[in-house]
Amino acid sequence: MKKAIVLGGSRGIGKAISESLKTLDIDVVAASKADIDTSNMESVRKFLQTYSNTDILVLNTGGPPVRKFDEISEDDWNHYHNQLFVGFCTILQKISVNDNGYIFVITSNVIKEPNEKLIISSAYRASFSSVFKILSKDFAKREISCINIAPGPINTDRTKELIDNVDEFVDTLPMKRLGKPEEIGNFVKSIIENDIKYLSGVVINFDGANSDFIF
Amino acid sequence: MKKAIVLGGSRGIGKAISESLKTLDIDVVAASKADIDTSNMESVRKFLQTYSNTDILVLNTGGPPVRKFDEISEDDWNHYHNQLFVGFCTILQKISVNDNGYIFVITSNVIKEPNEKLIISSAYRASFSSVFKILSKDFAKREISCINIAPGPINTDRTKELIDNVDEFVDTLPMKRLGKPEEIGNFVKSIIENDIKYLSGVVINFDGANSDFIF
Amino acid sequence: MKKAIVLGGSRGIGKAISESLKTLDIDVVAASKADIDTSNMESVRKFLQTYSNTDILVLNTGGPPVRKFDEISEDDWNHYHNQLFVGFCTILQKISVNDNGYIFVITSNVIKEPNEKLIISSAYRASFSSVFKILSKDFAKREISCINIAPGPINTDRTKELIDNVDEFVDTLPMKRLGKPEEIGNFVKSIIENDIKYLSGVVINFDGANSDFIF
Amino acid sequence: MKKAIVLGGSRGIGKAISESLKTLDIDVVAASKADIDTSNMESVRKFLQTYSNTDILVLNTGGPPVRKFDEISEDDWNHYHNQLFVGFCTILQKISVNDNGYIFVITSNVIKEPNEKLIISSAYRASFSSVFKILSKDFAKREISCINIAPGPINTDRTKELIDNVDEFVDTLPMKRLGKPEEIGNFVKSIIENDIKYLSGVVINFDGANSDFIF
Repeated sequence: MKKAIVLGGSRGIGKAISESLKTLDIDVVAASKADIDTSNMESVRKFLQTYSNTDILVLNTGGPPVRKFDEISEDDWNHYHNQLFVGFCTILQKISVNDNGYIFVITSNVIKEPNEKLIISSAYRASFSSVFKILSKDFAKREISCINIAPGPINTDRTKELIDNVDEFVDTLPMKRLGKPEEIGNFVKSIIENDIKYLSGVVINFDGANSDFIF
Repeated sequence: MKKAIVLGGSRGIGKAISESLKTLDIDVVAASKADIDTSNMESVRKFLQTYSNTDILVLNTGGPPVRKFDEISEDDWNHYHNQLFVGFCTILQKISVNDNGYIFVITSNVIKEPNEKLIISSAYRASFSSVFKILSKDFAKREISCINIAPGPINTDRTKELIDNVDEFVDTLPMKRLGKPEEIGNFVKSIIENDIKYLSGVVINFDGANSDFIF
Repeated sequence: MKKAIVLGGSRGIGKAISESLKTLDIDVVAASKADIDTSNMESVRKFLQTYSNTDILVLNTGGPPVRKFDEISEDDWNHYHNQLFVGFCTILQKISVNDNGYIFVITSNVIKEPNEKLIISSAYRASFSSVFKILSKDFAKREISCINIAPGPINTDRTKELIDNVDEFVDTLPMKRLGKPEEIGNFVKSIIENDIKYLSGVVINFDGANSDFIF
Repeated sequence: MKKAIVLGGSRGIGKAISESLKTLDIDVVAASKADIDTSNMESVRKFLQTYSNTDILVLNTGGPPVRKFDEISEDDWNHYHNQLFVGFCTILQKISVNDNGYIFVITSNVIKEPNEKLIISSAYRASFSSVFKILSKDFAKREISCINIAPGPINTDRTKELIDNVDEFVDTLPMKRLGKPEEIGNFVKSIIENDIKYLSGVVINFDGANSDFIF
């Protein structure tokens, strides 16, 4: 039976992916923040003692708080550097992904269109996207697909925290609605279910036609 | 019963998409070049007299020949301008896509990393991608998803024509193989089957980790 | 004495470039629309009978009118295809640029962030940018630099035509002002004056921090 | 008299920029690694006690060593995170850039086309580019231009360290040569000398037509 590990698997997009994968014949570990907190390297190391290999890995974590550039301290940078970058890199160094596997990372469309409110997220999700792109070429040798999903505004607790007036906000969106977590969950499931492997080294905007960059 | 129209549906990637959609409960028109030749505006107009609405539209056509820049004539530019751009635009102007529908276009990874051998394709597929991005915002209002798939080297007759020594070539690829047309066919099918709509206004590289641009 | 040909050299950005180059020891042909109209291939051919070689070439032309997608006719596509694409390609095929020369093209920031109002411009300026990128690698062999300048809102007659209320509009811009044509004119001059050649195959946004794409 | 601070100003590209600025009527501080080492936050804080404001700021530092992904330790990540990201952010938080000033950052073309050998540099230079893009919009209010120069292979000690056989390598480049540090030095000087301000929020590839991404 195939194994999947979904980080941040107890809430929002991570939960939707976990539940979607459970409908397939897959043994899913939906890791909560209590199981692994990627901002805490001790927690990462402990998790890696329990989980050392997998077929499917979903790198996913909550986003940093809104903070103005001038108010971000050195400690803040270091904390979220761990959460959004070093934690994920360490997992990729230490966990063994089986041949023909999949690695997904859930980033954000701020990697292409960085956002003043989400400056920490914009920075570190871009840096991890760079590493993930590089690694995709090496994982490809073993038919492991690396897929970076960059969501726009999805209907999660996180989005509701970030947006003051959700009704007003959705009215500015092309689809006049937030994305549903299940849309991403089902997307991930369908890639795996259909054994689609050549989709690799790719960043997939998932934002209901909201972004403006041509690609 | 949902209707799908797949241009270039008798060969290569278009054929794989047609066959994949036929496994769903969809009435698929797999249009061959005899049915519609987008380089010939007369042929486009004739096709549009027969087919005036659809739920799913797949814009797809064979690629132009390899030609050196200095050898491309004004007639060549105009011919492939029709085939890769004006034909598709005319179809989008005249055909009615039903609410909750899908429009796919099959372009090429040369839209991001243009290629000397494929200069005509690089140019016009980029221009159509620009139009398609713009239109995606309007189609979004009716929950019509616009998805641009940008394949790398896929195992089709076309690729074999373009590449002198396929065995040597695949050895330079991260996955050491060409993509299978069915991977794209199944990808398109799974989007529709799972009713994934928020994936819109997006360009999806489908190249087995071969491209080098970070996004 | 070095020679420069500046298309669209009698107005707006083209005029500013012409005047800036005239302050150097360069023989500048500031071609007006009467001298060459790139939408008219006959006019292009005639121009090329008079001007067959140069050291510096600036490809520049007025923009197409605002038109809704559904109202763009086949003739419109063909007309602006000539103006923004085939005309420039023909010039690059037929004119001889001397070793150590420069080719500039003035496009628009809509090549990266396409715009519904400027759909024709977005499309064809993207396609020409693709060709120009490809050709830059070949021109590099003879130390000819190819530089694509992609302006945002510049203080020209064109911009005033496009924008209903300029005062309101500039208030939305990061610099609270339009760019000055002379800023682009001086930029082009200073590249040439300082013999900067390694700046080639590059797209340079010139938009006062207005665009949102990370690169 | 205008003041400029150039980090990494004693070698390579930084030295070329310093020397070029000295030909203008500018008081240039060419800071060496002994003056400020951005990998050491103590050194950054000390520098900021001496230098608290400037008209022109050039953020520039040597690159990290070549290291395989699996061999990069947590300490390595943290060290280069400081050097390429936190150090620069802290400087931008603490130093006052005068109205009508300029901020340049020297990154690398690996921000767009990340490179396995330069994985650390690819990651953190991308993250800083994200922050710099965001900040450019705020600096624009005071007519401070933010310009990100992304060099390709330039003729510096660093490049010679990275490349085994420089002669073979240059033969693969479109211009068959490395870029000259003075080309970048003169470029920076000419922007300032000509008071070009609308060039802001921009990433400028400086790579002799070597990169492959269309933009």
